[in-house]
Amino acid sequence: MDRLVLHEDPVSGNCYKIRLTAALLGLPLERRSYDIRKGETRTDAFLSEVNANGRIPVLQVGERFLPESNAACFYLADGSPLIPQERFARADMLRWMFFEQYNHEPNVATLRFWIAFVGEDSLSEAQRVQFPARRAAGEAALALMDEHLATRPFFVGETITLADIALYAYTHVAEDGGFRLAEYPSVTAWLERVAKVPDFVAMEETSPVILAKARVD
Amino acid sequence: MDRLVLHEDPVSGNCYKIRLTAALLGLPLERRSYDIRKGETRTDAFLSEVNANGRIPVLQVGERFLPESNAACFYLADGSPLIPQERFARADMLRWMFFEQYNHEPNVATLRFWIAFVGEDSLSEAQRVQFPARRAAGEAALALMDEHLATRPFFVGETITLADIALYAYTHVAEDGGFRLAEYPSVTAWLERVAKVPDFVAMEETSPVILAKARVD
Repeated sequence: MDRLVLHEDPVSGNCYKIRLTAALLGLPLERRSYDIRKGETRTDAFLSEVNANGRIPVLQVGERFLPESNAACFYLADGSPLIPQERFARADMLRWMFFEQYNHEPNVATLRFWIAFVGEDSLSEAQRVQFPARRAAGEAALALMDEHLATRPFFVGETITLADIALYAYTHVAEDGGFRLAEYPSVTAWLERVAKVPDFVAMEETSPVILAKARVD
Repeated sequence: MDRLVLHEDPVSGNCYKIRLTAALLGLPLERRSYDIRKGETRTDAFLSEVNANGRIPVLQVGERFLPESNAACFYLADGSPLIPQERFARADMLRWMFFEQYNHEPNVATLRFWIAFVGEDSLSEAQRVQFPARRAAGEAALALMDEHLATRPFFVGETITLADIALYAYTHVAEDGGFRLAEYPSVTAWLERVAKVPDFVAMEETSPVILAKARVD
């Protein structure tokens, strides 16, 4: 395989998905860090060379660049047991990955960013107005996951797939965004199962607000 | 293949993606209509039998149900020329499909819904506050597509893939949401190329607001 370089911000759950996928597959991954809060993904060099969308993560494969975390995970895992062989199961895995980007990330990850990185006192008026709807939509996403996981060990089939990796990334830090994981016992049990998969790696970084709180406590 | 039933609202671009994919592949698709504005996807029967998420489209494959439009398209097209064989190209196709659900649909499709179906005079305060940011994000998505298509006939490779189908659905009706497609000449040329692909089918329905306007004119 070509040389793999992950262009990332270490505090981003979307970047962590790719590191976790590579770890489970035993693939070597070089890492290049950018601080999104300092605009480091909006420079001319980044926009012209890495991603015209100004976003991370981007997976570099040799001289080619692949944005979108879930697409990068699919590239790494293509042909591996992390993607089901059976046709319906493969599409069902993608179903949960699209659910993650549409119903879960814009709510669960966004509230984490607003609370733990921006800070509740610093939110804009537009953010404040959207807050209750995003809270409700995030809770609905977690409740749907909890119902699904009540009768299954993983999202699709009997073993871990990319659907679990995609949803694990922001769910396991959902309490940073004020969600109460104790209310979702099947989700909590599933988080523990994922963390016990061989070669699992943790998301290293904690938010600056949480670190600041920890220093105060 | 098992019997295929599309649970849909005919005015939804997400549902149209699946009809277009099936048409290009020559697959027979039964259709069952629901009116989302009348709550027909929130009934107990729908939630328990079709989709606990209360959303359409859902592709029924025999007795199994597959939500998420782009996952349903992937199921139908798996193994066909609508999905590239080459590993990077296949992931790159998914990259544009995730971009569609994260950067394009919540802006381009949502403003179409707000303007053409809800009506600008009937928007809630929360919708009104979000309007300018969604307009800007939708324009940014269209500009990124325009730049990408300036040097390519389709999003990935030389022929149509699911990336084009996913992005065509709400782009070709973006003017319903107040976007000006004339500002994106490469997008406009690509829309014409997609509509000329053999076995292409059009999205039949027009919004009630647009129909009402047409009756007045």
